[in-house]
Amino acid sequence: MTNRKFLDKAEQLKQPLIETVLTCEGSDRVMKDGDEIVFDMGKHCVGYPEIRLSSVGHHPDAPLLMSVQFAEIAKELEQDTGSYRGWISPSWIQEERVHVDVIPGTVSFSRRYSFRYIKIRVINVSDNYSVRVDGIRVKTVSSADRTKLIPSGLSGKDKLLDDISVNTLHACMQEVFEDGPKRDRRMWLGDLRLEALADYVTFRNADLVKRCLYLFAGTTLEEGRLANNLFLYPEVECDFQTMFDYTLFYINTLWDYYRETGDRETLEELEPVCVRQYEILRDCFDENGLIDLNKAGNIFVDWNFELDKTACGQAIYVYALKDLLKMERELGKETGELEAEIRNKETAAQTMYDPEKGLYVSGEKKQVSVASQMWMVLAGIASGDRAGEILMRVLGESEAVALNSPYAYHFLIQALLDAGLKDEAYQRMVSYWGAMADQGADTFWEIFNPDDPYFSPYGGIVVHSFCHAWSCTPAYFLRKYFS
Amino acid sequence: MTNRKFLDKAEQLKQPLIETVLTCEGSDRVMKDGDEIVFDMGKHCVGYPEIRLSSVGHHPDAPLLMSVQFAEIAKELEQDTGSYRGWISPSWIQEERVHVDVIPGTVSFSRRYSFRYIKIRVINVSDNYSVRVDGIRVKTVSSADRTKLIPSGLSGKDKLLDDISVNTLHACMQEVFEDGPKRDRRMWLGDLRLEALADYVTFRNADLVKRCLYLFAGTTLEEGRLANNLFLYPEVECDFQTMFDYTLFYINTLWDYYRETGDRETLEELEPVCVRQYEILRDCFDENGLIDLNKAGNIFVDWNFELDKTACGQAIYVYALKDLLKMERELGKETGELEAEIRNKETAAQTMYDPEKGLYVSGEKKQVSVASQMWMVLAGIASGDRAGEILMRVLGESEAVALNSPYAYHFLIQALLDAGLKDEAYQRMVSYWGAMADQGADTFWEIFNPDDPYFSPYGGIVVHSFCHAWSCTPAYFLRKYFS
Repeated sequence: MTNRKFLDKAEQLKQPLIETVLTCEGSDRVMKDGDEIVFDMGKHCVGYPEIRLSSVGHHPDAPLLMSVQFAEIAKELEQDTGSYRGWISPSWIQEERVHVDVIPGTVSFSRRYSFRYIKIRVINVSDNYSVRVDGIRVKTVSSADRTKLIPSGLSGKDKLLDDISVNTLHACMQEVFEDGPKRDRRMWLGDLRLEALADYVTFRNADLVKRCLYLFAGTTLEEGRLANNLFLYPEVECDFQTMFDYTLFYINTLWDYYRETGDRETLEELEPVCVRQYEILRDCFDENGLIDLNKAGNIFVDWNFELDKTACGQAIYVYALKDLLKMERELGKETGELEAEIRNKETAAQTMYDPEKGLYVSGEKKQVSVASQMWMVLAGIASGDRAGEILMRVLGESEAVALNSPYAYHFLIQALLDAGLKDEAYQRMVSYWGAMADQGADTFWEIFNPDDPYFSPYGGIVVHSFCHAWSCTPAYFLRKYFS
Repeated sequence: MTNRKFLDKAEQLKQPLIETVLTCEGSDRVMKDGDEIVFDMGKHCVGYPEIRLSSVGHHPDAPLLMSVQFAEIAKELEQDTGSYRGWISPSWIQEERVHVDVIPGTVSFSRRYSFRYIKIRVINVSDNYSVRVDGIRVKTVSSADRTKLIPSGLSGKDKLLDDISVNTLHACMQEVFEDGPKRDRRMWLGDLRLEALADYVTFRNADLVKRCLYLFAGTTLEEGRLANNLFLYPEVECDFQTMFDYTLFYINTLWDYYRETGDRETLEELEPVCVRQYEILRDCFDENGLIDLNKAGNIFVDWNFELDKTACGQAIYVYALKDLLKMERELGKETGELEAEIRNKETAAQTMYDPEKGLYVSGEKKQVSVASQMWMVLAGIASGDRAGEILMRVLGESEAVALNSPYAYHFLIQALLDAGLKDEAYQRMVSYWGAMADQGADTFWEIFNPDDPYFSPYGGIVVHSFCHAWSCTPAYFLRKYFS
């Protein structure tokens, strides 16, 4: 479904892309067929590169054919791009094959790339000449204005983590809050939520959040259901897939936006979108008030196929509805039914608590996971002393299903903070994101397991996004809780 | 050496490129990874293609990666482009790998291609969509104006050969007379000579010939020696290699131009360039007036490494000097020395005649070749009855080294005409170029052996030029001698 009024509003809120030029010196290296060279831009950037080439020897008498690979981390360049066979489309690999007819000359790329490193390999020249890279110039783009970045007052390791977070967010802030400027280059609801939180304490481009809220509201699935993510080109259109938790986070994202800006007009205009999601998703529960996964469909929670998501789904529903309740009260709506719904689902959630284990368990197999505990805390289903207890207990439980993604780690840190475990939250944050920094990360990664830094659920890191929005929240935590 | 005045004159003579749009309908075929489809533009064209794509299924959620190969003949598409290992740079293969980020959308190619067929292969899409080609549009370019084409009055097979010749010339007439719009995409002196001859009787764009004469005169090697070929970009610059015969043909090209146009100013301005070539090349002979191949360097004559080029070199020198003599007389210059030089070299050439064989023989091994006889005739060294005799004798001699290229065939046809063997010339022309037409040629090929139509001296036809200037002269012969 398309809401033209909302899309027009989103269009009016379009942010200018700020262009900054980044250059990299060339090399004296003279290259023939099969030779390759790697350039390092010195930092991660998102933009449109130009490669300046010259020749050595006679006038080029045949085109140059070269491959150019753009990589966010050096490790990507070690992969054989042609042999990737994972389930993510290899078309995401940032590698081009380019013919160059005029040398000396400049090769301009019309696609946008996300990278720090550029590997140039000469596939063919003729016998009469060799080629040399004289320099690289990148027109970087972002809708985040670095001159408006709020000073953090942080220092040392905190400053480092904040810088990397800010760089990550900066790279992801384009026409919308993208999930990753390399992949998927589009807006996902779950990522938007976290990016908005980080944005409020850094670039504070709340209009971009507003634009994104209107975009999601402007293109929905049947019955007004919000999709996971949406496309901007050739026209704004939502994806066909939904996730139970992502849909609900729209409520939290709108509420956060209102709390940050006091923009009541937007709240009033988009509140019906939130109510609609509630109306659709409240049918996903059984007569005992427990979530029915067959009805709820996909629930993301984490990059983990092993994780049973029943308890998380139950909690996330309550978590979102609590923000919806605040919204309804703020707008003076009748809230009796909503309050009853929350109580009903909270009560049902408590049946997931296993007193013997002192933990919430999920699904028929009564799976114990970190995710289940943290969401019970975030939803306020586990509160008071129990909140801290179940978190510390599960984190000490080697059999518990652990977290896989920076996205899930964000919610663990928030849960620890909500439970009053500020030191634990800080230590875990520094330990997890700090380990990425120790790997030389310029921007935070989509996927990171400290015990296996290059682990890939996709069958190869060459398609990974090493600058991923959902990893950018150390800036949020550091600035909000630790500065 | 650069002559700025000449290059400025050439710049002023730059011809506008006439743009014509050619379209090809799309296909209903829905494609996934590995699928390929071939489109036929219906005729050979030179220009800038655009491919219109749409998707089937969900909104594309990953880029499309496709390969697009442009081919002049269908046979090229049967080749495995990746396995070509010949001595011509594979960078000439007209195959691109393209990422497409927005579908539906149009992919525009900024390079110019020479083709009739387009093979599109989907390398990767995502699981959620397939791709379809909705149409192809080509902005074709040529400096030949079809509306000014002189009517030929030809019919039947003659008309067919004329049409193919005209199409070939049209495709090669760009900013200069190119040798082939696929390869080498630049101007060679030997090709220019033949293209100019065909142009005078077809498009009659004599200013383009003039421009090319000034370009060659404007960028020369040491001591003013004319190079084989020259480049236009990034700046006009001649190639570093020379060929004895190509250098000399500048003289004939200028003289032809003057005869066609009566443009005395150009003749006067460029005559010193011709004299300079003579001054340089007259040192390539021994005390007996015989050509010294060590001094003469490369002599092209034909695509044939087996051919001994001594006799041809001797004859071509005389052939060119005879036009220089006409030029000098026309300009009222003193010609005694030049006349003596021609006599001296003609006399020396007669020592190459083997009375027993009744043929001219070439080099220490006294090689018998078609090329040697035809050049002796063209130079007027063999004249009268002997001209026809040696041509018919050598053509009946199965041991004689035969001709390989359409370029060399042009000179055989001319020699037969010069010897008064008009029927034989016609039959040979129709038989040779007609055999290309029988292969379905839209344009005449760079290389053609009727007994082995896809023979390649380059190790693979995928780098062949199937639209090659030096093959376009049937139009010249038909219009000048047979209409």
